[in-house]
Amino acid sequence: MQLRPIPLTAQGFEEFGQVVELAKLEHYAKQISINHGLTTRFHDLLNIDTNDQGGRPIVNVFRTSPLPLPHKVKVMERHPLGSQGFIPMGDQPFLVLVGRTAGRIEGRLDFDDLMHGDDLTLFLANGRQGINLKKNTWHHFQIVLNSTQDFIVIDRAGDGDNLEEIEVAGDVWIGDFNS
Amino acid sequence: MQLRPIPLTAQGFEEFGQVVELAKLEHYAKQISINHGLTTRFHDLLNIDTNDQGGRPIVNVFRTSPLPLPHKVKVMERHPLGSQGFIPMGDQPFLVLVGRTAGRIEGRLDFDDLMHGDDLTLFLANGRQGINLKKNTWHHFQIVLNSTQDFIVIDRAGDGDNLEEIEVAGDVWIGDFNS
Repeated sequence: MQLRPIPLTAQGFEEFGQVVELAKLEHYAKQISINHGLTTRFHDLLNIDTNDQGGRPIVNVFRTSPLPLPHKVKVMERHPLGSQGFIPMGDQPFLVLVGRTAGRIEGRLDFDDLMHGDDLTLFLANGRQGINLKKNTWHHFQIVLNSTQDFIVIDRAGDGDNLEEIEVAGDVWIGDFNS
Repeated sequence: MQLRPIPLTAQGFEEFGQVVELAKLEHYAKQISINHGLTTRFHDLLNIDTNDQGGRPIVNVFRTSPLPLPHKVKVMERHPLGSQGFIPMGDQPFLVLVGRTAGRIEGRLDFDDLMHGDDLTLFLANGRQGINLKKNTWHHFQIVLNSTQDFIVIDRAGDGDNLEEIEVAGDVWIGDFNS
């Protein structure tokens, strides 16, 4: 099974989290004029949700190299204790692979403990889009396409087990976008 | 009085906050290899301090136009309830004007309620440096030099009065860096 990417939109991604349209903030974010009109504050872009079990939000840079494609999707992960936001520092497109929300997957987990290709959705971010994954959203690790890229990442530090993984059944692939 | 900029360094800025060396993260930040070696996580770069009086951290974009220079410095501000971090999305240099820490200024405030030119330090950030102002640090509003720039800003939302201002006495100027 070959996953086919669809363009990332706020509406399409709503089940999994938020999209931050860096190139179109004026259409998507609350604007406040400050600093005597020299600065526009695009206000409160991410739902930061990191306080469970005494957690705290942290700011990091993720420097991610391109994933060699084609790539067989073997495992998905989720963070049950915190949201995780990614804001690209460059403008190269990247992929976002997510799985259906916890409730539906939990139902399936009782059955065979595996995720299946039709549980997955592959989004293509245009490079000027950030995302913020809701707590407990199944996702693949970052898939950068063309060159090494830096992302500002806002996620959680603190006690507790904040990583779960699930295997993906069968032959599920992401094709080579460069060929 | 003409303020003379000095290069921004972590050591020189320590009294006022942190410097995030985006071009030299490998020398300044804790590194964790994740995603099967494809990603380096430069971990926990900012001391986020926004919880006073029920505050919460928020992520914003500040889009700031250049400040016309020369500029007379008339007022400084501080946020008594929260840190404020600025991470540039581009690579243009900018200025950071800060005032001595609260304790020393408080002493002076009892005297004449004004800040003076020799309380101020003007830093030149190279465009690949972010900063995180400590709670209660006197600072000028953003001073962008060449072209409109976007910054990721991590600061505080919540109840309480999180803005104080103080007048600057006398003739204190920032010169024109373009002439």
